[in-house]
Amino acid sequence: MAIRLVTTADSLRAQSRLLLTQKNGSSLGLVPTMGALHAGHGRLARAAVEQNDVVVASIFVNPLQFGEAQDLDRYPRTLEADMALLEEQGVDLVFAPSVEEMYPGGQPMVRVTSGPLGEKWEGASRPGHFDGALTVVAKLLHLGIPSTGLPGGSAFVAGAGGGLPAYRAYFGQKDAQQLVLVRRMVADLNFPVEIVAVPTARAADGLALSSRNRFLSDEEREAALVLSRALHLIEERANTNGPLDVGSARALIESQPLVRLDYLDVVDPVTLEPLAENCHETPFRGEGLALVAAKVGAVRLIDNVPLSS
Amino acid sequence: MAIRLVTTADSLRAQSRLLLTQKNGSSLGLVPTMGALHAGHGRLARAAVEQNDVVVASIFVNPLQFGEAQDLDRYPRTLEADMALLEEQGVDLVFAPSVEEMYPGGQPMVRVTSGPLGEKWEGASRPGHFDGALTVVAKLLHLGIPSTGLPGGSAFVAGAGGGLPAYRAYFGQKDAQQLVLVRRMVADLNFPVEIVAVPTARAADGLALSSRNRFLSDEEREAALVLSRALHLIEERANTNGPLDVGSARALIESQPLVRLDYLDVVDPVTLEPLAENCHETPFRGEGLALVAAKVGAVRLIDNVPLSS
Repeated sequence: MAIRLVTTADSLRAQSRLLLTQKNGSSLGLVPTMGALHAGHGRLARAAVEQNDVVVASIFVNPLQFGEAQDLDRYPRTLEADMALLEEQGVDLVFAPSVEEMYPGGQPMVRVTSGPLGEKWEGASRPGHFDGALTVVAKLLHLGIPSTGLPGGSAFVAGAGGGLPAYRAYFGQKDAQQLVLVRRMVADLNFPVEIVAVPTARAADGLALSSRNRFLSDEEREAALVLSRALHLIEERANTNGPLDVGSARALIESQPLVRLDYLDVVDPVTLEPLAENCHETPFRGEGLALVAAKVGAVRLIDNVPLSS
Repeated sequence: MAIRLVTTADSLRAQSRLLLTQKNGSSLGLVPTMGALHAGHGRLARAAVEQNDVVVASIFVNPLQFGEAQDLDRYPRTLEADMALLEEQGVDLVFAPSVEEMYPGGQPMVRVTSGPLGEKWEGASRPGHFDGALTVVAKLLHLGIPSTGLPGGSAFVAGAGGGLPAYRAYFGQKDAQQLVLVRRMVADLNFPVEIVAVPTARAADGLALSSRNRFLSDEEREAALVLSRALHLIEERANTNGPLDVGSARALIESQPLVRLDYLDVVDPVTLEPLAENCHETPFRGEGLALVAAKVGAVRLIDNVPLSS
């Protein structure tokens, strides 16, 4: 079945119901994206298609989460290629609303606020970014809810097991802090959805896939490899229960003149507070998240690896 | 059928599904309350019962929306009487969670923020109140969603018209600013629910019913009547397209020594900005909301009337 495109909340709701009915489906997966899709998004879509009867991807470049208008204008828009990639993965429906459809009457007055977790790390250099991101994710999660009737719905008929469609939303591990915050929002505000994290997709040489990689020169792209190498160093130490030696990993990055390190730290995967193992020579045990952010030329890149030992 | 009590989110979900199935219901109404119910809440419940196949009322005194711990402790808890009142109105299910059930692990990190609309009027004397109120309303709206399956749900079977249960939530006009903010939240964040406003219930002498009225002495209760009288003055002027003469209405309140006026204004019912008619002698045309707040003895009371002409 060919992929379908809808641009309004009403058609999203109508089409997603229709698809669930046609397929006699018991589950819906939502893949929220900002477009400019690459193989990493392909994996998100693939995971959603494998686990759900109906899959909706959204493409919306959310002005609320961009600090500078310039950055927003510069964000790549590639709808045709995005649709092709999503169709190839088996996505049923693409929701690509206009800014006016998502924010009629201008910016929303009532918003979601990310609290202290949104002020750390990426939040420190992008004030308001996570408030904007969570606000649009809240909207998309609501718009995607598979089975909620608005007034006018007719008789409720439960399936054999009395169940109703399962609802799952897919986020990349690549944006680790966003993932932590989305999980936190879903838990703190009781959103009726299961959040599924999908591992970061990497190029053969280790570079994490990102829509921003297209802005790197060949030389910068080569230099950017220190980020994944530094994380790999830490990961190997964690896997062998050694001291993490974050210092050496930082030094590796700082040795690369084209790269300006913002942060490299090992944090608690729930609170995002730096772990003591960051700066001690004790062996690593437990759960952690190694986070890195750096500017490579003019392009800010982030990467991370989850640690478990 | 006897009213049922549940105290956890899981049993709320299970029981509400069971009720929808048993009744072959096509709609669910949610009535969020803080308990200490009076005839005003009775009207909310009644409206919900008239319009929906299944009705759930929640009773939760939300610590997040109280500024002072003292005020929170003082808030009356009357579960048994509340259950009786709700049963009488035909409510099916009461959700009365503990603070630990609603906020496991303490206060939520991710919250809803009410923005500029939440800083005016009641918000000015109760900083953070509406953020706390909207946060818990967001949670309750999510927990009450009738038809959203969590993973594990079985086959989706649409009703005759392909519809699913309608979902409506009931709020009193008495808390006018809260109502405006809840509507704003639902619109700004695309909550899948219809908000229904229910007119303020009044005693025979005009006093708006409130859980706080029980704290008034006989003399204070008598004095408090100036609030509804002042609103009534403005309403009469609006109904006859006269100048609103808010000044005279304020003077009436200020003439009562037991009452300290906080504000009395006519505002736009969507933006809550004061209308020009507040202070001009031009006739009133259009839509407005006359808001009043005052302290009567130690008890802060609010009241309002919607104006339309």
